[in-house]
Amino acid sequence: MKLTQGACTCPAHMGGRIISKHLPTCKSNKMATQVPMEYAFEMASSNIRYGENATSEVGMDAANLKAKRVMVLTDPNIAKLRPMKTAIESLEANKVNYTVFDKVRVEPSDISFKEAIAFARKYQPDLYIAVGGGSTIDTAKAANLYTEYPDADFLDFVNAPIGKGLPIDKTLRPLIAIPTTAGTGSETTGASIFDFKSMNVKTGIANRALKPVLGIVDPLNIRSGPLSVQISAGLDVLFLFVRSGIYTHASTYLHPYSHSLESYTAIPYKLRGPAPENPLLRPAYQGSNPISDVWSIKALKMVVDSLPKIKKDVNDYKAQSEMILAATYAGIGFGNAGVHLCHGMSYPISGLVKNYNHPEYPTDHSLVPHGVSVAITAPSVFSFTSAMYPERHLQIAQIFGADISNAKLADAGAILADRIRQFLYNLELPDGISAFGYTYSDIEKLVQGTLPQHRVTKLAPLAAGTEDLSKIFENSLKLYN
Amino acid sequence: MKLTQGACTCPAHMGGRIISKHLPTCKSNKMATQVPMEYAFEMASSNIRYGENATSEVGMDAANLKAKRVMVLTDPNIAKLRPMKTAIESLEANKVNYTVFDKVRVEPSDISFKEAIAFARKYQPDLYIAVGGGSTIDTAKAANLYTEYPDADFLDFVNAPIGKGLPIDKTLRPLIAIPTTAGTGSETTGASIFDFKSMNVKTGIANRALKPVLGIVDPLNIRSGPLSVQISAGLDVLFLFVRSGIYTHASTYLHPYSHSLESYTAIPYKLRGPAPENPLLRPAYQGSNPISDVWSIKALKMVVDSLPKIKKDVNDYKAQSEMILAATYAGIGFGNAGVHLCHGMSYPISGLVKNYNHPEYPTDHSLVPHGVSVAITAPSVFSFTSAMYPERHLQIAQIFGADISNAKLADAGAILADRIRQFLYNLELPDGISAFGYTYSDIEKLVQGTLPQHRVTKLAPLAAGTEDLSKIFENSLKLYN
Repeated sequence: MKLTQGACTCPAHMGGRIISKHLPTCKSNKMATQVPMEYAFEMASSNIRYGENATSEVGMDAANLKAKRVMVLTDPNIAKLRPMKTAIESLEANKVNYTVFDKVRVEPSDISFKEAIAFARKYQPDLYIAVGGGSTIDTAKAANLYTEYPDADFLDFVNAPIGKGLPIDKTLRPLIAIPTTAGTGSETTGASIFDFKSMNVKTGIANRALKPVLGIVDPLNIRSGPLSVQISAGLDVLFLFVRSGIYTHASTYLHPYSHSLESYTAIPYKLRGPAPENPLLRPAYQGSNPISDVWSIKALKMVVDSLPKIKKDVNDYKAQSEMILAATYAGIGFGNAGVHLCHGMSYPISGLVKNYNHPEYPTDHSLVPHGVSVAITAPSVFSFTSAMYPERHLQIAQIFGADISNAKLADAGAILADRIRQFLYNLELPDGISAFGYTYSDIEKLVQGTLPQHRVTKLAPLAAGTEDLSKIFENSLKLYN
Repeated sequence: MKLTQGACTCPAHMGGRIISKHLPTCKSNKMATQVPMEYAFEMASSNIRYGENATSEVGMDAANLKAKRVMVLTDPNIAKLRPMKTAIESLEANKVNYTVFDKVRVEPSDISFKEAIAFARKYQPDLYIAVGGGSTIDTAKAANLYTEYPDADFLDFVNAPIGKGLPIDKTLRPLIAIPTTAGTGSETTGASIFDFKSMNVKTGIANRALKPVLGIVDPLNIRSGPLSVQISAGLDVLFLFVRSGIYTHASTYLHPYSHSLESYTAIPYKLRGPAPENPLLRPAYQGSNPISDVWSIKALKMVVDSLPKIKKDVNDYKAQSEMILAATYAGIGFGNAGVHLCHGMSYPISGLVKNYNHPEYPTDHSLVPHGVSVAITAPSVFSFTSAMYPERHLQIAQIFGADISNAKLADAGAILADRIRQFLYNLELPDGISAFGYTYSDIEKLVQGTLPQHRVTKLAPLAAGTEDLSKIFENSLKLYN
């Protein structure tokens, strides 16, 4: 077993990262003991069923699981559309007893989570079915968890340092996830993300125990546009989906894009830190590894190819199917690698926003869509991280169409940032975080909101301190000039 | 839901395959009803932990599962080597109560399966740990299954038409698989393969219920050569592993190679046949699909790159790690696509062999190693199947190093067969099935042994009748002239 040569395990600093510069100055007593470095990674994915109209099988799945009390979670918009209609018809056809909770909030908060938890605790479901985007699936995970732990305090399972990050030692009720966006990948992971209102940050619960038992990935569900809308919903819903097409799609689609970039550039699993004392404690996000690499590169290629096609034609079904597959790849293949700075910084960007509504986005509250908030800092983030794995950054730039035959490693960051900027510009993404209302004077708050996001930021290939983060936010104020 | 235009569902013929030539002549009454074609595929993989020395965590895993009676299965050779030593030490260190069954037969039979089942029924394990190659992991699956069904007849769960192929409606005890070859992928699948002695064929049990809960893929375990042998085993074992290196490795390594080729050329899942009435009945082997494609191509590239390196230097640890990863990819990524003719034909090749011992292979019975028996027909098989997806066959030929810039689609089969032949020659594989003692007069028997292997042969991109199979066997008698 390899021992680290002077790894620092002080949690206040880098949680076991080998940063030789750090060592001479660290005052922590936890330093310098010889700790075995991580030597393994674990891949735990859900079962995935992929196919057009596979949603119509969910009633049989419920019957196969011998479910007697099913809680179906969805949001008020999806409640009126094809995915829910199909799921409910299937439950009825299979004579499965169910109830619908349709009050999921898009970009959920601790408050909206608690509403779903209260509903579940009262109904006592033996199976959860989530029909919707990441918000719905994440809400279902939380409802399931806290119903199995009726006496738990809400912060018990929330990631440290915001919550207590307690281990989950019970087997939860089964959850079947039916995603309706191509952006989440939540159908295959144990992560549940929400806005923590009192601290104005995004945080979450991350534990394999939350994983759905089955993700039903049905490309028809992301075609919730004109055709099925005409049948199932009113004019306002039609307007919503038809007009919001490219915005909604571009923003959710941006998630697998940024996710794959971050996974591929995450710190390698063997450098993440000390090995856990018990394999149960190996985190869900473990750093890049040879399995996640295959998936992230493949997903990235698909997104770079398909997203511009969807921008051109929101009803390009082939490109849509590619996108939903790419999102699925995130869940089954590279979800275990994790994400880093773009995600860590996106949480305060979404959490602190006061007065911004994304064009034609369905919401009654200020909201920066998750996909947009992670993509917006990407040019600056990868400029910064390229110092660590310049070859990987160049390889990504090549996927974005750069000619790298004569490129120098030292220019990897600049080349990649340029390409990403152009890509976002073509998708008509807002011009930097200033478009959300942030100014130079907000940067300190944004940095303070990023620092507690250890779970993700510690996976960055090199440690980003306060000064680094400030610089990245500053460079993200405007993108296109 | 799409309906097939005249699919024939008569099981005697093609089990729902669309073969327009077949329809006018079919006498079956089951024909011609409009059957919904398959529209989905399901991916169910085990959890995988990959890392050097990850075997040393198995005791903690057992403790985490609260196991009180662990049955550790292995074969008489591995019993003396590092992988078992490490696993047992870990169980002891965690004070887990266990017993060892070390009588697994390499290339197991119904008889050797029954021996393990009898042992398990008596011991009543609450956790199974398999330490060994595919033979050991497959034996553990059978022991687990028939212990949970104490009254079942052995043929109840064996694949139809040889057995009854009954569904499995119980949750089995957990199984942790620790592979010691880079060839099996069994640690992630629900398949259990054995020689059915009375019929002289290989067959198996294939059901997701058999899947291990965890596969521990530890590259150190396939280094069971000189170094650890000196510590843990006697001179004869040393001889066995040192001398058998390339043969043992080349043959087990050939499995992911052939497996990836077959998955990538398998019939697409939507053309496999009618959709199942219940998603539970969707088979483990479902045809090629966009997820399996990513993995099979990646695995194939790794094998084509690494296997010649291992031939050169049996202790090339980097190449070994690549190979064990490639095998893992099979399990997590392309196992669900399935295999077809090479595997279907390999079963009688192994099953009917009378007097052949593979050079320096550890065995007390006639044996063609699985990897060799699947690889040996590959040149002829892919010559035949190239008629269906010539582009894919050319793409594979390119991975093997062929220049396909001016290649015609009509030549895809010949080009690929040539490349595979050269590859096998360089690995010093036996010169065709005649090397195992088969002559022209055995071909009828070999074909008869292949025909009942519906589960796999029906996944071939085009149906292979008696005449086709005869021709393929004939062309496989000799490879290198």
